[in-house]
Amino acid sequence: MPFITNNQNAMFYECGFSCDNGIFFKNDKQSFLITDSRYTLEAKENIKDKNIEVITSSDLIIDLIKVAKGVKKIIFDPSQISLEFYNKISDTLDLIAKSNFHQKLRAIKNDNEIDLIKKSQEMNKKAFKKFANFLSKNDIEGKSELFLNFKVKEFLSKCGKYELSFEPITALNKNIAKPHALPSKDRLHKGDILLLDAGIKYKRYCSDMTRSALYDGEIRFSKIQKMPKKIQKIYDIVLKAQELTIKKARSGMSAKDIDFIARDYISKAGYGKYFTHSTGHGIGLDIHELPIISHRSEMIIEDGMIFSIEPGIYLDNEIGIRIEDLVLMKNGKAEIL
Amino acid sequence: MPFITNNQNAMFYECGFSCDNGIFFKNDKQSFLITDSRYTLEAKENIKDKNIEVITSSDLIIDLIKVAKGVKKIIFDPSQISLEFYNKISDTLDLIAKSNFHQKLRAIKNDNEIDLIKKSQEMNKKAFKKFANFLSKNDIEGKSELFLNFKVKEFLSKCGKYELSFEPITALNKNIAKPHALPSKDRLHKGDILLLDAGIKYKRYCSDMTRSALYDGEIRFSKIQKMPKKIQKIYDIVLKAQELTIKKARSGMSAKDIDFIARDYISKAGYGKYFTHSTGHGIGLDIHELPIISHRSEMIIEDGMIFSIEPGIYLDNEIGIRIEDLVLMKNGKAEIL
Repeated sequence: MPFITNNQNAMFYECGFSCDNGIFFKNDKQSFLITDSRYTLEAKENIKDKNIEVITSSDLIIDLIKVAKGVKKIIFDPSQISLEFYNKISDTLDLIAKSNFHQKLRAIKNDNEIDLIKKSQEMNKKAFKKFANFLSKNDIEGKSELFLNFKVKEFLSKCGKYELSFEPITALNKNIAKPHALPSKDRLHKGDILLLDAGIKYKRYCSDMTRSALYDGEIRFSKIQKMPKKIQKIYDIVLKAQELTIKKARSGMSAKDIDFIARDYISKAGYGKYFTHSTGHGIGLDIHELPIISHRSEMIIEDGMIFSIEPGIYLDNEIGIRIEDLVLMKNGKAEIL
Repeated sequence: MPFITNNQNAMFYECGFSCDNGIFFKNDKQSFLITDSRYTLEAKENIKDKNIEVITSSDLIIDLIKVAKGVKKIIFDPSQISLEFYNKISDTLDLIAKSNFHQKLRAIKNDNEIDLIKKSQEMNKKAFKKFANFLSKNDIEGKSELFLNFKVKEFLSKCGKYELSFEPITALNKNIAKPHALPSKDRLHKGDILLLDAGIKYKRYCSDMTRSALYDGEIRFSKIQKMPKKIQKIYDIVLKAQELTIKKARSGMSAKDIDFIARDYISKAGYGKYFTHSTGHGIGLDIHELPIISHRSEMIIEDGMIFSIEPGIYLDNEIGIRIEDLVLMKNGKAEIL
């Protein structure tokens, strides 16, 4: 199926190169990466496939029309294309709108992608450990969420060597319950709960992990935590929900069946209405990919999919807990990365 | 004129609040910020204007249609709206496409905005000084561009307290000549030229400055530099072009007239074809706003506009020099911020 995309991750997936001013046109035999002169040298160096031609262009759309005119049924994503772009090509090209068509195509990962995401998550875990070590070995009593946020990026990015999957979340106590917590000036003290949600990119592939942990002068981002009694109760429910979901997830289930495992457990424990988001999301070149593990998603889970399992409980103005791992569906079961 | 926007900076400009899932609908008497339940509390706290109503919505487009139906000639920006969004509203609403309509509206800054951009650039300059001090006082011989890039963010953001206008550029020697230089593993040694192009955000308003400087064990990001003879020649041409442009820029000129001052000077010095970009760009909530100071822009420059003046010369595989300041048009002339 022929398609066009100007999404950088889709472009990279197709040809091993991307830039912020490019259009990729996939056709049966010959495909095209159309970009301006700033990028063509690098594009040619990176694109190994001989069936992909790099076109140096001063007007990407004119050149797209040149190579795509006459081709039947070219797919595009209407959620990723501006009206302006569409208006310039819709009279001349034979277009079919398909939302998320390229994310669907990337939902099942190949072996190389699996290795890259594994490596990415491995490096992410190491950064969590190094950050825990830093927090435990230094006098950080009284440091702000903002400081913690800045500092964790040093470990995650290895001082700028690696990009992050997203801006990490470093939230304390009641701030964890804010659904879109930005780091605040609130300060860390002994007895606080710190949530860390973070990921890095390795060769463009994202990782993602969340831990909620007690700071008692030291901190460990392990799943085994000793917290004050009331918080421990919630922590144990979230942990159990997460572990149960990973244990019971099977290829062949729908995404909403998997969401239900976590949601049902938390509901039966009496906290259903405090679990306010989906159980997980696919991950790859984008931090959020298919499948979405939500109560609405009918998508069938298959071997080779990689997604997060991250239930949470959020008590407004009090506390929040979330625990997240990535899993790979393999031989019908979920394997933690 | 009624309009709709889902651009965060346009939204913030209109109502003092923005989020990643919102639509702002401006109408003559009553305007609306439509968003989901995660954001409504914060929206209501931040929106002071009583003629703006916050609508909590589980389907933004349905609620937009409810309040905008029947209103004549609603402007929208076709370059900032997806085809999917447009398709959902175009049958019901009376829409007029106007590219960049909101950036045009923001091209002339009010006094409050001028103060914020001044303050932003002031803090930016301080960060340049502190970074220079760090580079001069510590043993940084052999440190990589990546390290310098990571480190400068510490000073710019004050350890994460402030957001950056953009990812700073820290490029050495021949890497300066790459038009979209990402930090590399190349290392700093005595005698190297370091280009630093960086800016921060203060209360959401961007700053932007570039200096090219010699590292001789110490470094100063001053415009007065002593460089090796061949590079000094180029440096002096760029500096003179920049100073001349600032000196001669007048309100009432077109943007391309201003671009011509720098371009003409560099061309007459024999380096015209090595000045490969526009002379400058407007700045405000977006890092790139109107006016664009390019050889194609017919926009008339007016008092209250703020833009960069940043000519450069780039010799492939050899060296690049760029010098950038922000100017405010005031009493017909350009005043450096």
